[in-house]
Amino acid sequence: MPKVSDEHRTEKRQQIIAATLRCVERDGFHKTTMADVVRESGLSAGSVYTYFRGKHEIIHAIASSGVTGIKDAINDLVVEAGSGGAPPPPERAIETATQHLLNLSEELGINLPRIALQTWAEAARDPEFLALMAPEARGIRAAWRGYAEAAIEAGQFRKDADPEKIAMVLTGLLPGYILQLVVIGDVTPKAYAAGLTHLLGR
Amino acid sequence: MPKVSDEHRTEKRQQIIAATLRCVERDGFHKTTMADVVRESGLSAGSVYTYFRGKHEIIHAIASSGVTGIKDAINDLVVEAGSGGAPPPPERAIETATQHLLNLSEELGINLPRIALQTWAEAARDPEFLALMAPEARGIRAAWRGYAEAAIEAGQFRKDADPEKIAMVLTGLLPGYILQLVVIGDVTPKAYAAGLTHLLGR
Repeated sequence: MPKVSDEHRTEKRQQIIAATLRCVERDGFHKTTMADVVRESGLSAGSVYTYFRGKHEIIHAIASSGVTGIKDAINDLVVEAGSGGAPPPPERAIETATQHLLNLSEELGINLPRIALQTWAEAARDPEFLALMAPEARGIRAAWRGYAEAAIEAGQFRKDADPEKIAMVLTGLLPGYILQLVVIGDVTPKAYAAGLTHLLGR
Repeated sequence: MPKVSDEHRTEKRQQIIAATLRCVERDGFHKTTMADVVRESGLSAGSVYTYFRGKHEIIHAIASSGVTGIKDAINDLVVEAGSGGAPPPPERAIETATQHLLNLSEELGINLPRIALQTWAEAARDPEFLALMAPEARGIRAAWRGYAEAAIEAGQFRKDADPEKIAMVLTGLLPGYILQLVVIGDVTPKAYAAGLTHLLGR
């Protein structure tokens, strides 16, 4: 019964990844040990080591998993607009992406913004981790580029606007939301979107 | 001669802070020990401990020092515009702030973007560190609010625009620049500013 076995495997892996994320949220990447992960997961050490040979492999899985689903949330904006249709304006797009992050945090019972900050620090410190994480970051940029291209096509920006540069700015707005949420705490998706509306002179 | 003594004291403190920042850039906050700081500073252990009783006190000084000078760079935009004068448009303001960070990194011989990422992670993990850092973050937001108020006054945004919400977005653009610089590496102040210009529909 390979299908059941695969499902079981995926479920266990996700259980271990979720336990690791809770440890990282609390203690950061450095202080989290395999013993912490085993304890937090509620599984036996033997079971955890069946799926991941060490902390390094779990972190590998986290870094390359696109755990936030941000990329898909942005791509959906373009898909929903349909071929030739206009995607939502940038303030609504940013509101959707930031709200997605809050919804997913609640759903998973994990504070994704706090984990994101740990992930970025690890990328700045460890070239190997950076190499795992960079494709994910590029993927988010590419999704925003797809959005910008659709918006230019639909006449929402100037025809000669550079979609890659617009994507840099839209990509940049998310970490700034996450950091302010953790450090200052008062940013809501609606307030952030309203700020962008006012900045855009609307 | 209290003045000379004060200058000497300030200089030594800054030397120790700079050494700590180099350690943090390389190893993160956790792995940096007082022994590392002593070695990196080139001072004697006795001398370092005269100024800071431990790593905690140095980190306290870093978190509350406004080391990046970003707040002053933003405030200068408003001061330079003069009373009733128009500050630069947001894309130029963002270009100035991001360029300031690169210039200061070069001047200090320290990679401030990488250190910033370590600082944010520490704030997400340690409530005491967060309490030290939050006033600095609020100060940067307040500086952007001052900019937004001057820009609204000068007719660059709608009269009924909310300066605090505009400030949220402008504050948010900096961490997003820093993160993309470290993780993707291709963002320049000019490209980022151009992206904002195109996003603004200009």
